[in-house]
Formats: sequence, C-alpha cells, structure tokens
Amino acid sequence: MPSFQTVRGMRDLLGEEALAFTGIIGKARETALLYGYKEVITPVVESFELLSAKSGEEIRQRMFIFKDLGERQVALRPEFTASIARLATTALKNEPKPLRLFSAGSVYRYDEPQKGRYREFYQSNFELMGSSRPEADAEIVLLTDSFMRSLCLRGYAFKIGHIGVVRGILSQENVDEKTQNAILQRMDKKEYNEAFKLAPTEHCRNMLEGLLQLKSDDCFETVEKIKAYVATDEIPKAAADNLGDILKLVVDGGCPIQVVEPAFARGLEYYTGMIFEIYIPELDIALGGGGRYDRLIELFGGEATPAVGCAHGIDRIALALQAQKNVLSTEGKKRVLVLAVNDLLKGEALKIAQALRLSGVGVEFEVMGRKMGKALEDADKRKVDYAVIVGERELKEGAVMLRNLAKREQTIVPIKELAKKFSF
Amino acid sequence: MPSFQTVRGMRDLLGEEALAFTGIIGKARETALLYGYKEVITPVVESFELLSAKSGEEIRQRMFIFKDLGERQVALRPEFTASIARLATTALKNEPKPLRLFSAGSVYRYDEPQKGRYREFYQSNFELMGSSRPEADAEIVLLTDSFMRSLCLRGYAFKIGHIGVVRGILSQENVDEKTQNAILQRMDKKEYNEAFKLAPTEHCRNMLEGLLQLKSDDCFETVEKIKAYVATDEIPKAAADNLGDILKLVVDGGCPIQVVEPAFARGLEYYTGMIFEIYIPELDIALGGGGRYDRLIELFGGEATPAVGCAHGIDRIALALQAQKNVLSTEGKKRVLVLAVNDLLKGEALKIAQALRLSGVGVEFEVMGRKMGKALEDADKRKVDYAVIVGERELKEGAVMLRNLAKREQTIVPIKELAKKFSF
Repeated sequence: MPSFQTVRGMRDLLGEEALAFTGIIGKARETALLYGYKEVITPVVESFELLSAKSGEEIRQRMFIFKDLGERQVALRPEFTASIARLATTALKNEPKPLRLFSAGSVYRYDEPQKGRYREFYQSNFELMGSSRPEADAEIVLLTDSFMRSLCLRGYAFKIGHIGVVRGILSQENVDEKTQNAILQRMDKKEYNEAFKLAPTEHCRNMLEGLLQLKSDDCFETVEKIKAYVATDEIPKAAADNLGDILKLVVDGGCPIQVVEPAFARGLEYYTGMIFEIYIPELDIALGGGGRYDRLIELFGGEATPAVGCAHGIDRIALALQAQKNVLSTEGKKRVLVLAVNDLLKGEALKIAQALRLSGVGVEFEVMGRKMGKALEDADKRKVDYAVIVGERELKEGAVMLRNLAKREQTIVPIKELAKKFSF
Repeated sequence: MPSFQTVRGMRDLLGEEALAFTGIIGKARETALLYGYKEVITPVVESFELLSAKSGEEIRQRMFIFKDLGERQVALRPEFTASIARLATTALKNEPKPLRLFSAGSVYRYDEPQKGRYREFYQSNFELMGSSRPEADAEIVLLTDSFMRSLCLRGYAFKIGHIGVVRGILSQENVDEKTQNAILQRMDKKEYNEAFKLAPTEHCRNMLEGLLQLKSDDCFETVEKIKAYVATDEIPKAAADNLGDILKLVVDGGCPIQVVEPAFARGLEYYTGMIFEIYIPELDIALGGGGRYDRLIELFGGEATPAVGCAHGIDRIALALQAQKNVLSTEGKKRVLVLAVNDLLKGEALKIAQALRLSGVGVEFEVMGRKMGKALEDADKRKVDYAVIVGERELKEGAVMLRNLAKREQTIVPIKELAKKFSF
C-alpha cells in the first residue's frame, strides 16, 4: 500500500513549528486576558448562508462548501467575524455592552498553495462591540501592539488609515456603494490607475490622486494634511478628525510606530472607519489587521451596533519569528530520561518517574527494554540532558545515579533531592 | 433578516464553558510535557481514503465527506489516530523510536445530537510508537491518570482489559477475523447473547460465557483467574500474562483504582492488546480510553511498528467537572476597570491601563464614553472588582483613586504602587 499524504494545501505542523503555533496562540490568549476579552469557541462548520452574507465575492468563491448528510449547505469558516456577528445577534444579544470577544483557531480558504500560504491556516481574532468611540479603535490597535511585544517581535510597524476618508470623498461625489467597493478593492491592491478610472468625475479623480501625495514620515503631520485637504467636505473631514483622535490615543498608549496611509483600503467590504495592518521589514505580507465595521451586526439581523475588531495570522507571525530567528523559548527546560538497570527494577524506576512528574519535571521513561548502554547512547543522540539510572545498590540507600549526558559525569543523588536538580 | 443559527449538531462554547475547554486542553498539554510527548498539529481536512482505511464501518458512515474544489474526496477527521499513523509512515518515518506524539483539537462525527453529544467535539490524543513492552502500555494509562489528577477530578476509575484474551480464545477456535470483529462489536455494546450466538462451537460459546464470570473486586485476583482460565491455551494465556505485567506497572506508578474486565472489548477494530477506559460515578459514558494497536502502522503502509495510544473526550471531561461542581479556577484573578473622569484625561488613563497590563494585570478600559456614575454602576453589575479612577487632582500628585466596588470604599493610591494592589 502506498503511504498516504496530506490533502493538497493542507499541512502538518511538527516539532519547533508546532511549538511556535501553540506558543503564539498562548500569547494571544494572554493578551485577551490582559485586555478583558472573553474567549468564545465557535464551530469550524457554519451555514454557507451565514458565511457568505457579507464576506465579499472574493472570499465567497474560495470557501470549502459542501452539503452535510442532512442536505444542509454548509462551509468551513474562512474567518471568524461572521461567527462572532452571529453570536452578537443571538446568544449574546442581551449581554451588556461593550462586548469583548476573543477567538483562536483554524480557518479555511481554497487558495493556490505557495510558500507560507495553506488552505488551512490559523488566526487569533478580537472583537469589541458596542462602542463607536476612538478609545475602542485605539484599544484594538494597542492590544495588537501588546500581542506583538509579548512575542518579542522586532521592528514591526503599524499602517493606519480610515476608510471613511476615501468613502467620504466618493459619497460627496454621489458615487454609489457598489462603485465605491470596486474602487476600494483596486486601491487595496495598489492598482491606483485602474481604481481612479472608475471615478465618475474629473474632480473626484483628482481628489483621490491628491490623497496619495499627502503621506509624510510623521504620522501626525499626515493626519493634519488630510484634515486640511478635505477641510471643506463634511464627511471625509469627520473621518480625518476621527483618525487623528484614534492616533493620539494609540500613541498615548505607548505604541509609537505608525505610518498613516491617506488612501489606505482593505479587502473586506464591511469596514466603515479606522483600518490598520501590521508589518515587519522582513516580510511583505501583513501579520494582521482590522478595523471598524459599524454596520455589520445590523446586516446579520441584529440591532445597530458599532464594532471594531482585528485578526492576526498565526502562520505569518510564525514566519516572522522564524525570519527574526526568534525561537519562542521553552526556557531551558531540561530533558530527563528515567531508566532501570534491569527489568526487575522497572516498577521502582516508574515510581521515581511519577514523583518527578508530580514535581513538574518532564520525564521520558525508557520503554524500549534496551540494555542501559544502548539506551544512554540513544538518549545522548536525542539531546536528552540527564539520565536517572535506577540500580539496586543505590536504591537500597534511597538514591539513584544521576548522569549528565553532555558532560558524561555521574553522581549519586538521594531520591528526595532529585526533583530539585532539575528546577533551575 | 432573520438571525442566523449554528448548523444542527454544532454549538458555540461561551463563558465558563469556553474557559473549561481551553483549561482542560491546557492541562492535557502540560501532561504531554511531563511525559515527553511532542505536540503535532494535523489538518482537520484529510483524504477520505486515509480516514476510512481502518476506522470501521460504523465511523465511516458518520463522517463529513465532501469534494473540495479540486474534486478531491476529503473528509473532516473523526479522530486523530489515522492522521498520526499517516505521519508515522511519512514525515516521521525515520525518527528514532519511541515516538511520543500529542495532539488536541476538534473532530467530527455525524451523530444524532443529544445532551452532551455534538457533531463537532474535542479530543486530546496521545500515541506512543515503537515499543511492544508493558512499560509502554502502562505509560499511556498513567498519563491519563496524571491528566485526570491535574484536573482534580474525583472518584474516577479505570476499566482495563486485553483484547487478546477474547481474540486469543476465538483464534484457538479458528474463528476468522471478520467474525471476531462482529463478536467483539456486540460485546462492546454488552449485547452478550447476540455476541455469543456468533461463536461457531459450543465450546467456544462456553469459553466466552465463562470469561464474564471471572470478574472480582480485586483487579490482581481477576487477572489470576483469567490466567488460570486460559492456562492451557497459549495465545489467550500470553495476553493474560501481558495484562498482569501492565497492571503491576500501572499500580507501581501510583494509579490505584482499577477494574479488570475479563471480556472487555472496544469499538475500534484496530486494537490488538491492552485496552482501557476511564469513568466517573456521575456519568455513564467513558471520559477517554485507548489501547494497543500493533498492526495499524503497517496497514497505513509503514514498517511493522508496535504502538499504544489513547484519546480523551474534552467535552465529556467538561461535563464531568460540571457534574462535580469543579470550576477550573482562574485563581482569584481580579477584574479591574480603568476610567478617566473626563475626556481630556483619556490618554493619561490609557497610559495607566497599559502600565498595569505590562505588569500582568488584566484591565478593562472604559470605551463607552459614559459618565462616571453610570460606568461604575455598570462595572458593579458585571462583577468588576476594582475601578481605577483617573482624575485631575490625584494625577497632579502621581496618584489615582482606587475604588473597591464590592466594599464601596475608595482610597488614593500612587500610580507606582497600583499594580501591587492587584497581585495577590
């Protein structure tokens, strides 16, 4: 029989890589605790109707869709926001606001596989619902900052903008929403010429083109320029003011590095306000991003609820850590092997192993029935640090032989003092 | 628009329940570390061919099967073992033995939903490959014991048996494997009459019926009885001896509570040796179980590799903890709200919130723009413990007002000393 393989686009995470993924998700969970976000675990399988309600044609066409045995049209979630919006309009409808929710897990998109891009990938997701104030937007940016800091990621930068600036300009020019979406989608891909061609008037086209020129190295300066640029147009002006307020709070909150993009757009159609992404110099893809989506909950059948949220790509963060040669430390945990010199002492050796584990020491027990020399040789190869050798003579005195495999030294240690030897 | 619902058989985990699930998985992960098991993360979506290769007709008919956009026949994993066996025969083929692997995550079976049973549920899974010795079997039982202990689960009991006893008796009688499986399946469901009817001879039927009578309160006594019962039949005798060896090690390892079931069978066809399940008095379903499956890796196209493993039902463990009113503690973590007395001080308040978070204190920041009285009233309702009130007067002196919401007391606390107030 030929050996089986993973399905195309899917992959196994092994060894260091698996450690990195669970480590990153652990840090996301810690961040949630620090900011008062409650974890919710939603199903991987949701109704196609829910998942396609507001996710945009692009994602819709890349979903894993199928019928279950009950002929229900279902799909694997391509992101978390639809599930969270479902919760906000059903089980959590009557919860007091603000509602702070955290999720982490796998999501699915049928993309062409390439380096670092799989059809199953992992996200952490934060949503803050019920507040339209700049504090809420700032909080989402700041918790992303705290999350990245907790991973000791270096040199990351936030790119911040406000979808309301471009949408505001287009609305003033009476551009319908569909055309607005088409323009924003192209701007998101930096296809500016294609985007501007869709502008209905010369003035509108000029306004958009002019926006691109406003970017400066200082983020507050950029905001001031945007404010001045749209000073006479009420809707985009409000957006620029809002962006300024958010930015001030973000910087007050200790997140210094900001690039303000005057003409920033993000793929998902549901954004209505501040949007942001986070990058490191070593990678040209965003590690995460998010923004405000004040109309989404309503679209899912709930009461009008302002909301802001973000998602972080665990796979990409893992790539970033790798690029920075940053190994999430298992902090000098020593590997310990416990073995008996003969079969009759296996039970005694096992008792010692269990006592060590109860003290929090990770222990591998010899289960191959190998002769001691062979077992030690193998442990050395696998970079085990210490071997606890249980022999008759030492045991009579309540002791064991402790061998430092790297140094090839051994000493007799009383069993009572054994756990202490590994707790540094 | 009507509000959306979860797909039938799927459910959201919220609040305490979500905390319990992540807490239990966290304890499983700690257990893996203590026993030297490396975590692997395999895809939820696997090829149907892989998942159906050895999982038995019953599970096969309850899988979520579909074609992906590339017309591949795929399914959502109904358990972990097939994926781990795939790994053992491919990416980890040349790893030195023993191979100790841990996984945790969601699995999928299309069952009729009922209380505590969903079509998406969670498992932790441990596999130890490469050793045929009783130490290996004992380790799998012992790590389950350690896992349950770490959750402070009370009164749990292991039910242990050996599939080789029944299979041995049937083999001596020349019963073919298909009939053996049919008999074992019925015995697993305790449909003994149905099972015994399939025995080809009177003698065989009597042998099986006699087995059932051997159970006694003392597990070692039961094993001795089984040994005596099959003393003249080489194959079942070897199985009974093996069970005795394993049991001795398990008890040496500090796991005292054992029920030996002479005629124990488990659903999955791939078991070849020791099998076990774990129960608590409050629930009539097993919290987990496992056993030895020495021929599985070979069936997946690998080299003959003895192996033993187990899976634990996170959902069921959560039910068990609930039945025992055991709340996985978030250990007296205090909930803290930070708010400014007016909008101008928001930035300063945010700085204080960030400093607290950096010290590891979980903080909710007021994002609703409410007047202070209203915000405090709401915090009180949501059982927040402390409010940090940032006002102009105190701030001038490097201090804030700290309000104990339950006691309705407030004191002025220097900002520098604030974090300490929450670290008990």
